[in-house]
Parts: sequence; C-alpha cells; structure tokens
Amino acid sequence: MKKIFLKWKVGYSNSESEKPKKYVPAVVPGAVQLDWAKAENLPPYWYADNCKKYEWMEDVFWLYKAEIPDIKLDPSEELILYIGGVDYSFSVSVNDEILLKQEGMFTPVTLNLSRFVKERGIIEVKILPPPKNPKSLDPEISSIWEPRWQANSTCKPPVSYGWDFHPRLIPSGIWDETYLCLCKLFRITDLYFTYELNDDLSVVTGNITVETTVENNLFLNLSIEDPTGKIVWKEKSLKAKKVSSIEFQIKDPLLWWCKDQGKQNLYLIKAELVDLQDKVIDTRVKRCGFRRIRLVMHEGQWERNSSLANTQALPPVTFEINGRKIFCRGSNWVAPDIFPGTITEQTYRPLLELAVNANFNLLRCWGGAIVNKESFFDICDEKGIMIWQEFPLACMSYEPTKSYLKVLEQEARSIIKRLRLHPCISLWCGGNELFCSWSRTTMQNIAIRLLDKLCLEMSPLIPFIPTSPIMGMRHGWYMFRTPDYKQDIFEFSIASDATAYPEFGCSGPSPVEYIKKFIPEEELFPPKKGTSWEIHHGVGAFGKDGNGWLCLDQIEYYFGRPENLEELVEKGTWLQCEGLKAAFEEYRRQKPRSAIALNWDFNEPWPSAAGNNLVNWPCRPKPCFEDVKNACRPQMLSIRIPRFDWNKNDSLSLEVWMLNDLYEEIPSKEAIIKVDDSVKNILTCKVIIPSVPLNKHVCAGKIQVDLIQAQSGPLFIKAEIPQEPQFNSVYKILLR
Amino acid sequence: MKKIFLKWKVGYSNSESEKPKKYVPAVVPGAVQLDWAKAENLPPYWYADNCKKYEWMEDVFWLYKAEIPDIKLDPSEELILYIGGVDYSFSVSVNDEILLKQEGMFTPVTLNLSRFVKERGIIEVKILPPPKNPKSLDPEISSIWEPRWQANSTCKPPVSYGWDFHPRLIPSGIWDETYLCLCKLFRITDLYFTYELNDDLSVVTGNITVETTVENNLFLNLSIEDPTGKIVWKEKSLKAKKVSSIEFQIKDPLLWWCKDQGKQNLYLIKAELVDLQDKVIDTRVKRCGFRRIRLVMHEGQWERNSSLANTQALPPVTFEINGRKIFCRGSNWVAPDIFPGTITEQTYRPLLELAVNANFNLLRCWGGAIVNKESFFDICDEKGIMIWQEFPLACMSYEPTKSYLKVLEQEARSIIKRLRLHPCISLWCGGNELFCSWSRTTMQNIAIRLLDKLCLEMSPLIPFIPTSPIMGMRHGWYMFRTPDYKQDIFEFSIASDATAYPEFGCSGPSPVEYIKKFIPEEELFPPKKGTSWEIHHGVGAFGKDGNGWLCLDQIEYYFGRPENLEELVEKGTWLQCEGLKAAFEEYRRQKPRSAIALNWDFNEPWPSAAGNNLVNWPCRPKPCFEDVKNACRPQMLSIRIPRFDWNKNDSLSLEVWMLNDLYEEIPSKEAIIKVDDSVKNILTCKVIIPSVPLNKHVCAGKIQVDLIQAQSGPLFIKAEIPQEPQFNSVYKILLR
Repeated sequence: MKKIFLKWKVGYSNSESEKPKKYVPAVVPGAVQLDWAKAENLPPYWYADNCKKYEWMEDVFWLYKAEIPDIKLDPSEELILYIGGVDYSFSVSVNDEILLKQEGMFTPVTLNLSRFVKERGIIEVKILPPPKNPKSLDPEISSIWEPRWQANSTCKPPVSYGWDFHPRLIPSGIWDETYLCLCKLFRITDLYFTYELNDDLSVVTGNITVETTVENNLFLNLSIEDPTGKIVWKEKSLKAKKVSSIEFQIKDPLLWWCKDQGKQNLYLIKAELVDLQDKVIDTRVKRCGFRRIRLVMHEGQWERNSSLANTQALPPVTFEINGRKIFCRGSNWVAPDIFPGTITEQTYRPLLELAVNANFNLLRCWGGAIVNKESFFDICDEKGIMIWQEFPLACMSYEPTKSYLKVLEQEARSIIKRLRLHPCISLWCGGNELFCSWSRTTMQNIAIRLLDKLCLEMSPLIPFIPTSPIMGMRHGWYMFRTPDYKQDIFEFSIASDATAYPEFGCSGPSPVEYIKKFIPEEELFPPKKGTSWEIHHGVGAFGKDGNGWLCLDQIEYYFGRPENLEELVEKGTWLQCEGLKAAFEEYRRQKPRSAIALNWDFNEPWPSAAGNNLVNWPCRPKPCFEDVKNACRPQMLSIRIPRFDWNKNDSLSLEVWMLNDLYEEIPSKEAIIKVDDSVKNILTCKVIIPSVPLNKHVCAGKIQVDLIQAQSGPLFIKAEIPQEPQFNSVYKILLR
Repeated sequence: MKKIFLKWKVGYSNSESEKPKKYVPAVVPGAVQLDWAKAENLPPYWYADNCKKYEWMEDVFWLYKAEIPDIKLDPSEELILYIGGVDYSFSVSVNDEILLKQEGMFTPVTLNLSRFVKERGIIEVKILPPPKNPKSLDPEISSIWEPRWQANSTCKPPVSYGWDFHPRLIPSGIWDETYLCLCKLFRITDLYFTYELNDDLSVVTGNITVETTVENNLFLNLSIEDPTGKIVWKEKSLKAKKVSSIEFQIKDPLLWWCKDQGKQNLYLIKAELVDLQDKVIDTRVKRCGFRRIRLVMHEGQWERNSSLANTQALPPVTFEINGRKIFCRGSNWVAPDIFPGTITEQTYRPLLELAVNANFNLLRCWGGAIVNKESFFDICDEKGIMIWQEFPLACMSYEPTKSYLKVLEQEARSIIKRLRLHPCISLWCGGNELFCSWSRTTMQNIAIRLLDKLCLEMSPLIPFIPTSPIMGMRHGWYMFRTPDYKQDIFEFSIASDATAYPEFGCSGPSPVEYIKKFIPEEELFPPKKGTSWEIHHGVGAFGKDGNGWLCLDQIEYYFGRPENLEELVEKGTWLQCEGLKAAFEEYRRQKPRSAIALNWDFNEPWPSAAGNNLVNWPCRPKPCFEDVKNACRPQMLSIRIPRFDWNKNDSLSLEVWMLNDLYEEIPSKEAIIKVDDSVKNILTCKVIIPSVPLNKHVCAGKIQVDLIQAQSGPLFIKAEIPQEPQFNSVYKILLR
C-alpha cells in the first residue's frame, strides 16, 4: 500500500450552497481555525482573550479542497481515499458529486476513487457548522448550562462549547490522518480478535478475524508471536474469504499487567494474504495483550448491606486484573489541545511519561472531550496505564431521538471496534455525570442502554458502567475548602466514605512565569473579572457564583490578602500541593472500601491561569505534580493529619501509616516522625512499623503533639525510614 | 388448523438409557408427580407432610409416550407437533429417533411429524431429573441457602427447591398446551407488532410482522379494528413473504390505561393469508393496547442529590403511563400452584378478580417462580392490571457460564417475544434480590447485562431494571415487629424513606377451619417444630432462627400466650390485618417520594398454615384481604398512627389524611374522627378536609388524644365522612 498525501486548501462560505471566495493552504490533519489564522495573521488564540476573535468561524461552512494528483493506476490496483476523522458533520464529494454524508467524527471514511483518477478529480470535504441544538429540555437546567446544551443529543464533544477549563472555541476540520492510497484489488481490509482466559489464567482461547476484498484462490497465513519473538501459534493456508475467522489457543500466556504489578507483555498477531504459490500479497499485524479485567466487590462490602431493611449493595468498583485487586491511582485525562487535529504521538508521549512518573496506573478519559487517537492507546499499552474510556456524553440529559441514537450507535461502534483491541482498555463508561441533578439522564435512557448493549456485544469481557459517578462513588470537591466553608480538604476527605473517587481536586494557580505568557502585563495584578484572567479560568470560571480557580477567597482566609502576584501564586500553590497530597493519601488509606483515586484533572487543553490540573499546556508540570507523584508511590509512609490549620493551643494528632499497593510484603521497619516549625524541631519520635501484608495498609500508631511552643507559620511533618528515603514523606501545614 | 389431542402415558426409569417398566395414564398438560400419585393412590401431597413421599420422583427419568393416531394427511397439509412447554430438560423422539433436545421450559416446541404419519409413530418426551448444580460459589452463602443453590445457573424456577412459602417439591412434566395439528402447507406461523406513540400521544406508528411458510403467489390482508369494532387501518394484497413487515399509523388512538385511570382499550390486529382469488387460506388475530410506559423521577428527587458531594441521584422508579404519574398499589404474584401444568385460565381468573377487588393496579410476577401462561396476561390486559415481569432468577449469584448464558438467552427471547405484545407488561426486571448480600450477583454480571440487551432489542419501549430492589427501593420487613424488636410495623414504615416498596409484609395465620384441612388434628395445638406446622411454614420457615410465619413470639409479646388455636389465630389475624393496613397506607402517604407499595405476597402455591399472603391456596381470601382492599382505595381517609400499642398515660397523636391517587380533585369535606374503646367513645371531633388536588395527598390536621379514661383492650379509630362511606376508614389498635 502506497500512501499519497494530498495538498489541501480550505476556505469558507456563508451558506451551504455557496463555494468559498478564497482558499488558504490547509494542514491536514488540523483545524480550519488554525489554517485561517495562519493565513490571515490572526493573533494567537491562546493569548489574552484572542480566542473570542475566532468565534465567528463556528457559523460558516468550511470547504476543504484537493486535487487527485497524477497517478498511474494499475488494473490490479484501486485508489482509496482514507479520512481518519472529520469534525463534525460533513460531506465528501469529487467533482461536485457527493459520495458521502456523515455526522460524527469518530467514524473513519474509506472511499474508492478509482474512477476519478483519469480526470484528476477535485476532492472536496464540506464541513457544516457545529451542531447547536436549539432545544433545552428543562429551562431550569439549561439556564445554568446554556452553552454546553447546544451540543445536546449529538456526538460532538461538548467541552469546546465552553467549560470551566475550556474557552468557547469549537474546532472544525479534518482531525485525523488522511491520504489517498494505491491499494491492491486483493488485500486485507481488517484484522481483529477476541479472546478469553480460563479461570486460572493458564489458557487463552480466542478468535482472529481477517477481512479481505477477495473470495477465492487466495489464502491466509496467520501467526502469533510472543513478547520474546517466539511464534506460539500459527495456521497456514486458510482459504481467504471476505470474512475469515479462526480460533486460536495459547497455553501459559505471558499476561499483560498494569504498571507495578508485572510486565506489559505484548503479543503480535500477524495475517498474511498469499497466493497459490505462497507469495505474500498483503500483510497486517496487530498487537495484543492478554489479561482479565473485572470490577469486583471489595472485602466487607457485601456484609455492609446485609440487613433486609437495606437490601441493595453498592455496585462493585474495585478493579481486579488477572485475579489481583488493584487500587487505582491516577487522574482525569482531557484533550491535550483544543484542536484535536494538532495532536500527534509527540503530544501524547511526554504527557503519558509524566503520568507514569506520577506513579499512576489508571487514567480516566473523560466523556466531555474527544476519544483519543490510536497512538495514545499504543503508549498506554506499552506503559501499563489502564484506561477508563468514556463515550462522548457529559453533563446533560441526552434525549434519545431516533436521529441521535443512529449517530451514537455509529460512533460507539467505531470507538469500541478500534479501542477494544488495546489491553490498556479497562472500563467502558457511558459518560460523565449523566445521572447527576445538573444532567438528569437516568438509567432508563435508551442512549445509555444502547451503549451497554454495544459494549456487551463487541467487548463483553470489559466491564461497563453507565456513568461516573455511580452509586457509592463520589465526584468533588475541587477546592481547598468545601462550598459551605465548613471543612478543608483534609477534613472533607477523612469524612468521605465513597467506594471510589474518580474526580476530586484542589485548584491552584499556575507559576508566575507561565501566567505572564498569556495574561497581558497590565492585567496581571490584582486578578479580576473582565480581564484575561476570566477566560483563562482564574476568576469567574466555576459554578454559579463563579469563584474561579484561583480561589482568592481561600488564600485570603488562610494568609490574608496577597500583596502581589508572586505571593498569591506561592500561597495558592502551597494550598494546592498540600491539598492534593492530603486527598490522594486519604483516599488511598481508605482501601479496601475505597478503590480508586483520580484527581481532576491531569492536563489541560490550553493555558490555564489557575486550575485543578497537574500539568500545564502543552506539557509543563505544575509544582503540585511532585507532591502528587510522591503521594502515589505504591509503597510509602503516610501521615493522616486531621486538618490543615492549627492554633497554638491545639494538640495535633497524627496517625502513622505504611501504605502498600504492591503484591509483596513490606518487612517491619522503624520510622522516625518529626514535627518542625520554620526554625526548630518540636518533636521527634520513633514508631515501629509492623510488617505490612501484600496489598494492605497498616496504621502503625498515633502521635499527639502539643503546639504551644511552635512558631506561627509553616509546620513541617516528616515521616522517615533511615536509609530508605523512598518511603519518606513530608507535609507542610499551617500554624496560625 | 385442526388440533388433535394425544393420549399420553407416563412412566419412569432409573437411568437415561432404560425404558420405564410401567406406564400410567398421563394428563397433559400436567405433572408426572400428579399422574403417578393418582395411579398409585398416593396420599395428597398437600396434606400434612405427605409431599416428602414425592421427593424420590425428582431423581428418576420420566418418559411420556403417545401414539400418533390414524390420520389422513392431505398433500397440502403437514402434521405438526406443538408442545407449549416441558419442565425442564428433555428430548423429543419419534420411534426412538431423537428430534430435539432442549433445556428450558419457556420455549415451546414445534416439530414437523408428517413423515411419521404412515407408520403411526410413537412420540416420546423424555424428561431428565431437574438440575442440581453441585457447585456452590461461596461456601458461606450456600450453607444458608443450600436447596435453592441447586438451581443455580439454570432457568429452572428455583422456588420449588424449597422456599419459606414453598415445600421441597420439584415439578416435572409437560406443563403447557400440547397437541398435534393438521396444518396447511401454506399458513401464517406468527404475527407480531411493535409501535411507538408520539410525544403528545396523538399518533401511534407501528410495524406489523407476519411470518408465513410461503414465499410467492399468496398475499396478506391486514387490518386493525378499534375497541368499538371499527376498522381504523387496513392494507390489502401485500405480497406474502417468509417474513413480511408493514408500517401502520393510527391517529388519535384510544389509549390503554391501567385500572382507575381510564379504559382498557384493546385493538385487534388481523392478518389473512389469501390466494390470487382473495380466498382466505389462514387467519391470525392478535390483541393490542396502545400506551406509553416510563419510569421517571418523582418530584423533588433530582434536587435531593444536588450537591457535588453526593453526586448520584437515586434511579427513577415512578411509573408514568400515558403521561400520568401513577402510584402503584399491588402485591407480589407467585405461582398459584406447585404444579404449573395444572394452571388454567380458570385458576387465574378468580385470583385476578380478587386483585382487581383489592384496588390493585400492579402485580409483580416474582422471579423465583414460573413466568405465567398466556391467559394470565390476557386477563390483566382486560382488567388494567400492570405487570412487573421478572426473569426466572432469584436470590443467587448466577455464574455466567457459556452454557447458562445460552439457555438464558433462548428462554429470555421466548419470554419477551410472547409477553411484549401485552399492554399489561409494564416493567422488565432481571430477577429477585440479585444484588443483595445473600445473592452476590452484581451489575457487572453478563447474565444481567444480557437480559438488559435482549429487552432493549426486542421490547425497547418498556423500562428495564436489573433486579429488585435497586438503589432507593426497599424489600422487607415481613413481620409485625422488626428483627431487633425495636419497632412495630407502624413505626418501621413511618421511619422508612424508600422510593418504592416492592416487597413488604406482615405475616399472620390462616383461618382455623382452613388449617384443619391439612394439619392433622393431633398436631393442631400448640404448633411446634417437627410437626406438619413446619412444612406448612407456621414454624421454622423463615430466616436462620426459623421463627416461622405464625410469629408466636410476637403474639405473646402483645397478648400473652394463647390458650388455644382459636385465640392464636384471632390475635395473629388482628396483627396481620392492622399491620398490613398501616404499612400500605403509610407507603401511600409517602407519595411522591414513594411510588410503589406491593405487599409480599398475594397468593401462595399450596396451603399455608401462616404466611404473608392475602389469599390462600387455591383462592380463599384471608381476613386481611378486606383490610388491604380498604387501604388501597384510590381515594380515602387515612390516619397516621405512630404505633400499635399504647399505655393509659400516653397521649395518642393522629394525623388525618385524605389520599388521592386519581386524576380528579376531591372537593373540600368535613370528616368526623372518633376514638372508641370497646365500650365507649373517648373522643369525637370534626376535621375540615381541604380540597385535594388530583394525584396528591393532603394532611388535614393532627389530633391529640389522652388515653387515661380509656379501657384496656382494643381501641378503635374511625375516620368518617357523613353520607360518603366510601371514604371511611377504621383502625383497631391496642391499649395495654
């Protein structure tokens, strides 16, 4: 197969029937906004509030145009146009003959253009304005969430309509790899597989399906290569049909494990299409990892609801991989860029390397954003990062109209078909916060039931949940103090009793030098509404009262009004670092009742002045990244601190824990616990840590500290194992 | 079509390969146990503990045998054997040639026996012993529930393996209508339809499918007749195919309503197979009722969970029919006989007439028992009784093995295909108490997901819930006092805050003369373990400690030890009558938060000495039936009484309510409230009842009554509207 990349141009018109008056060069994959901005020298969308200057581009009709180059087509060949994805509603035509109309960005396009080769046809991809659903189902809800409701009952990811971390900027364009290819008439068009492990994981039995364009006189050679390069199964000279299916069995497979639990063993499944002389005509290879993933009840959960008066147990949310219950430490992944067309493997890799560094074993790919490109999952397969994959539904009541269900089924089938082959895929989820009061979708919604059905049919061995949170799980809170101001994040986390925390956060400012890159100097201090701080989410971004992610009120509550930007950022960062650490460690300590701790959010799609994210766009860790990384070490000392701020008359009580998420015991050790103020040591004591069983935590003891002699300001609490610094932890709290 | 009923014989052998040594006449449909008992003069299974004498019949191989009679088969005819259902695993053979092997009693058998006509073939139906799954998944659970676990991961209804209201007696046999029929070669083999109502219910759009044995030269005439006999839609001379499908539309349809809300309008859908001369060759007619059924959130439910810290709303459980929210008053329906083969329309009709009399609008067909025969649903369609239909799963962890899933899919398809045409079908439910601690199935179980998927595919417009209870619903309690003895049923019901009560009960004894029919005289008093009281559930039936449904301890708690059977029954009946009334009325008063009140159970499959049932086998209302009937009047006065027993120093507080489940207002009225002891009136007062809006209840006021002058013994509380006795209510509580 020979790929031919086209030379695209793009322009816009104000109606569907008109053609553009002007074309500019287009990058494919890319976005119409970026092409136009480049050609017209628009100021960068990410600076100040420039993105408002891009808003008009939503409501016009964009037309991509490219000429089929001079090609000599052999009779044994076909010319195929492959478009990886078009965002969002579009048609494809050649020489003004419409060949395809489609709604939905996740279903690739494959068109045979052979008949247009001689005349050097003009390919056009016309993109309709993004959907703007005029109907708000419930006036009470839609008044709050107006912008995102425009995406209601479509499969266009709603985040770009405006969110608390995303400006209003709706991308359009050809967003995934697109090319012409010269294909042989007889070729492999698809290769996929299913498998199942037996009870004791010693035998994998599966099925390989090869789709070809032929029906006779050609044959398939199939083989499976194990991670060491050894062929562990093969089948020769299978008669090639349009759809050929064959069972395979491998004994004692090398299992795929998530990070920290074992190797990420990957097999290669290879299909060759051969002729009677065994000459190879076409080849396909797919990677495969064998593992068994379940959601199971945690220990003690059945007993919790054993009375007849309380007859419904909470649903299972503990991941079990290859028979091991795994506590999931991780984060929420949103699109790494506003414009999905710009995302490449080079975008994903450094971000995912940071996720590995952060000791994460699971990322939740949030339903408000796009479903990632192939390379994202390839990297996660290699690194052992489990993926919780949501369908593109978020925070709304999705009306199950026939037209919506049709697009949803098409898109869901494409998503499941592509992603299910990746061993990293660990959970299908209907979407984000659908059963919440601000969304008002229910389990009776046909859209949700349809997704469950499709996952069961196409990917039956991966668990499915209808939304997050489901009963027992909790989303929030996202700031250092609770909305009623009664608890700080230390207190709130300790008082929480959820079975999983798939979204919690503690927002904080970005570093000063980063902020200066996109907030004009004259607006820098003090941050206020009506300036670029607002569109970059520092103020006015979240909730009805629009506190904003800088949390100025909370900084002031603890430290008084900051004098300058540097002080604001320093204090806000302190709160974010300690808050995230407190929540991550507390939710971990609640194992086995708690099974998942994922902060909101890992990355962000553009520059945030402040936010919940650990990593700034495009790939710059914030200071809290280090704290989270430390709080997520699989084995570590952890101190349960009842709250953040203390008075001199208080007696500070500390619980000393050894956390262990690995399937190996930690032998007994001696820990040193120190409490220091900014100048002197207040307390030093030894605590014997008993040996810790595999995948269990142990509370080794409680320490009471009088603070009367400590100096106001930061208090440092240190837990150390002499000679084994990998276990050590340090906390910085406040003495008033 | 001419039906030919066969003359069956039945016998048994001890192995699959042996033939019976002896045959006895068999009633078909029926049960092998009854045939054998009749022929061998066994004592009746329902008397004393005689059913133990039937237990050996479980473990043998039963063979039904019948000869094809002398038939003249025209070349334009076929001889078809139709078997409505065989309980449970079986094979069908003719002249020792096995034609079919099947597991599952809910999938009918249709076999073409034309080639056996000449030789007068011998038809044999061989029934394997009922499944006895040797594997208990969790030793801790199976030790408690051993008998029923034998039915695990099969579709055999588990109730007959032994339950707290059903003895161990596992029926086997041909249990539904069975005959040979002389069919024309060209005929209609099936007729079914789907439909959807538009938003404002003014147009029904549907699809009729006709399956025939022909592919050409024949035609279909289709018509729909409205409830007045008028043809409202027709289609002539549609070319008949194996599967012919045609759309229909009816404007302003007469809707089907549940009882009390409107008429049970039924249409007739008729298909005629005709030849070129329009001569009718075959005809099929199906009844149809048009209605829209949803499960929706009740008012205020979304707001209840609006904080981010509690982000998951309880699932919707309020029925909405044709746009009206309906409070469901009803009961749990179990099989009306141990032997399903004996059940006919004449069994169902008087029982369902009682349900109508009881002011019920919904019955829950419980998953532990069989799915009812066709006539059950026909009657419910006519009477406006909504049906909550469960699949045959109950109280176990169903292991989703491939073999189980295969049988489950076959059986579920058969059940859905048959029942979905009935307008009474209002809810599909995976089964009984599957997500409870004693069952340990979860929403991740493939069996549950498969049922959801099949319902979505085959019956998308009827809601589905995975089990009962789901979150928010409550099952239990079933006795007058709670297990910890701290609350009586008045207190427990008032303290409950469920969204639905699909199972609650208050057990009580059967009438003395009824008990005497099956408990031998020498065992009658006092009831104790080791006597027939035990197998008839009076003692030792329920829970680990085996209190038994007589609740002797509770009778003693209130009234001291009874002197004789008459006193025991009188006091136990008092508790059951007042307890059920208190619970039904309280759960109704909790509308709209509460949406469903169904007591456990309506009927029972054999004579119970005591139990939760309202109607004794086969069809004898217990005294509590009248109380429940009164407590379920759609419009009525209701008094909230805080508890059952009082002391003279207490001040009794009474809330006066007017309940209204109808969509019509109740004008303002004057109510008289009286409190009497057994000899005199203690208090009489007037309460103004304001006008009550449609489908709303109103608390009109609170009355405080000093009891110091009252005489110990029963206290009667009466609420009356002069001249309108249909609203009046009376309660009998206890002054110590």
